[in-house]
Amino acid sequence: MPSIPVPSVPEPASSELPPGMAAAGQISTEELQLAARNHGMPLEALRYPITPVGLHYLLIHFDIPAVDAGTWRLSVEGRVRSPLTLTLEEVKARPAVSVAVTFECAGNGRAGLSPRPITQPWLLEAVGTGQWTGTALGPLLEEAGMLDDAVEVVFTGLDRGVEGGVEQQYQRSLSLEDARREDVLLVYELNGQPLPPQHGFPLRLMVPGWYGMTNVKWLSTITVVDEPFLGYQMARGYRMRATPEEEGTPVTRIAPRALMVPPGIPEFLSRRRVVPADSVCVLTGRAWSGWGVIERVEVSTDGARTWDDADLKEVMSPAAWRGWTYPWQPTGPGEFELACRATDSASNTQPLDPPWNVGGYSNNSVQRIHVTVAPPASHSP
Amino acid sequence: MPSIPVPSVPEPASSELPPGMAAAGQISTEELQLAARNHGMPLEALRYPITPVGLHYLLIHFDIPAVDAGTWRLSVEGRVRSPLTLTLEEVKARPAVSVAVTFECAGNGRAGLSPRPITQPWLLEAVGTGQWTGTALGPLLEEAGMLDDAVEVVFTGLDRGVEGGVEQQYQRSLSLEDARREDVLLVYELNGQPLPPQHGFPLRLMVPGWYGMTNVKWLSTITVVDEPFLGYQMARGYRMRATPEEEGTPVTRIAPRALMVPPGIPEFLSRRRVVPADSVCVLTGRAWSGWGVIERVEVSTDGARTWDDADLKEVMSPAAWRGWTYPWQPTGPGEFELACRATDSASNTQPLDPPWNVGGYSNNSVQRIHVTVAPPASHSP
Repeated sequence: MPSIPVPSVPEPASSELPPGMAAAGQISTEELQLAARNHGMPLEALRYPITPVGLHYLLIHFDIPAVDAGTWRLSVEGRVRSPLTLTLEEVKARPAVSVAVTFECAGNGRAGLSPRPITQPWLLEAVGTGQWTGTALGPLLEEAGMLDDAVEVVFTGLDRGVEGGVEQQYQRSLSLEDARREDVLLVYELNGQPLPPQHGFPLRLMVPGWYGMTNVKWLSTITVVDEPFLGYQMARGYRMRATPEEEGTPVTRIAPRALMVPPGIPEFLSRRRVVPADSVCVLTGRAWSGWGVIERVEVSTDGARTWDDADLKEVMSPAAWRGWTYPWQPTGPGEFELACRATDSASNTQPLDPPWNVGGYSNNSVQRIHVTVAPPASHSP
Repeated sequence: MPSIPVPSVPEPASSELPPGMAAAGQISTEELQLAARNHGMPLEALRYPITPVGLHYLLIHFDIPAVDAGTWRLSVEGRVRSPLTLTLEEVKARPAVSVAVTFECAGNGRAGLSPRPITQPWLLEAVGTGQWTGTALGPLLEEAGMLDDAVEVVFTGLDRGVEGGVEQQYQRSLSLEDARREDVLLVYELNGQPLPPQHGFPLRLMVPGWYGMTNVKWLSTITVVDEPFLGYQMARGYRMRATPEEEGTPVTRIAPRALMVPPGIPEFLSRRRVVPADSVCVLTGRAWSGWGVIERVEVSTDGARTWDDADLKEVMSPAAWRGWTYPWQPTGPGEFELACRATDSASNTQPLDPPWNVGGYSNNSVQRIHVTVAPPASHSP
């Protein structure tokens, strides 16, 4: 597995706010509208190896389209010898694969940047792991017969809207090499049930290890093209840029991240945690990376000054998160800052400080959780 | 059906911001944390008579608790002759009822207030309709045998946290009269599946027509008490107050509201709508009230200046929303403000301006949707 290409990107001083940027901690009504629709996974749901439906994160660019499975068709067209049109039943009749895969939004962590781009304001919860069932894309492309001049495959969803001034259906492309990967699927079930409307019913693309924007929902058309596809979501959205003017590099695989179930009990408004001092607190969580297997998770209980190795659980599936545990005996009542940090088999690890870029993508700086360890007396009801 | 008691509450001038209040349009990181967890129903999901799991709104005060259905028990205790302890199988073995019921958070609409209380910042999406299956509460209380001094029934969930400085399990009470209502159920299925963790697995209370805070999730104990219950969620939370100091009146039934599926296509960030000018646009939506059946829905296409009746669909279930449609032929390209307004059988109707109270509850002022009607040419791709 290769390591993550790290562009050299200067973080602007927060005094100079360019257009489209906001200071941390000030969310606009427009962003709230997005946050009310596009929900994260409450972090206590890290306890489930497979995220229950309704807890998995969701990012919907436009509206959830109404799709009639009876009249819906999947078209495979463009630079192919034999264009195909398949019903949902025909897709389901093909050889089926079921696999646990972790999805994460490329913008996860964005709201922790300063300044941050004004768009979906994710904190840390834009993640989830589904048991996805579908059929491999490669054999379908084989059957259609890609012509010699084919260079990319474009995936078009039924969701339509305006972004960056461009009216569009949601579209993303893959190189031929990526499209032919064995683990790239067209999926029609999540956790043993038909895809829910919000996850792309009746069919979506799934590219394990890549950020979620790749997994085109409400998939209707697969088009083989003879030149690189320059649609909005490829050429303008989802690129790592130091300045708005530059071309940038595409966002692809998921950078490593470990998250922890916030221990103890929360305060309603602040979500700050209270942990009783009278027992060992077993910290648990999960970690993942699109660049390799998770080989190490470290935990800090002193604000990321010193680190100790957590115990890793078995690997559940190559592209799914890996569980970890760490028993913590607080030294006594007081205030503590917990943190966790993942390292993958390609030696990619999480930074302590947020990596900055114009789009606010791939901020995998370590999670920090402030915990109040309460004296036993004050904790009892 | 009675009409809504309307307390006389002066709206503070927005220049004087009391503690715990914020100006409209400025969301803090603490509130964003809540918005990332507690999601609304994307309004296009008004198209579904029964909201698919994962699209129904969620408000979780503390954390989703981990519940083992095998060891979980429901206790009925307190001022009863025969305390009961039931397994989930024993609850399910009782006579079952399945009914469509609309839930709405009491804080829905809160973010539209100015100033607004700093807490879960709902816009308009905190709603959903489930097909709920369970067993009636009344016969269970009958079986336990409430003693003559019983005055209320307290429902305790397994979710625990700190709110308003008080460490607590989530608890709400009902009067004996309300607890004995035939339609009050203990529910264990949503849309034909076991309750998802986030909706209260394995059992929750359901009081049709009341705001969602009543429907205690992760229910573990039902306690019959001989004096009014003054827990945090009854005596401090969920009360209509003109000033923070006063006792206020309890939040109970759902005020009428109509919502519309935003027509056309959205712009990603602003969620503003673009509708093509070249066709009749059929506006659709749903309306509900906890005070009576919806008897009228009106639509305005000129910024709530003039109103026209929408066509009502059949009543699906007494406590579920009612569909409506309204064919709209835009007069031509330009900017339009759409609005809709519900009236129930008790003659309660929606106000044009937000009704203000300290907790920001029950703001059922009419939804307004700004729409750009585009010339046919600019709309085609």
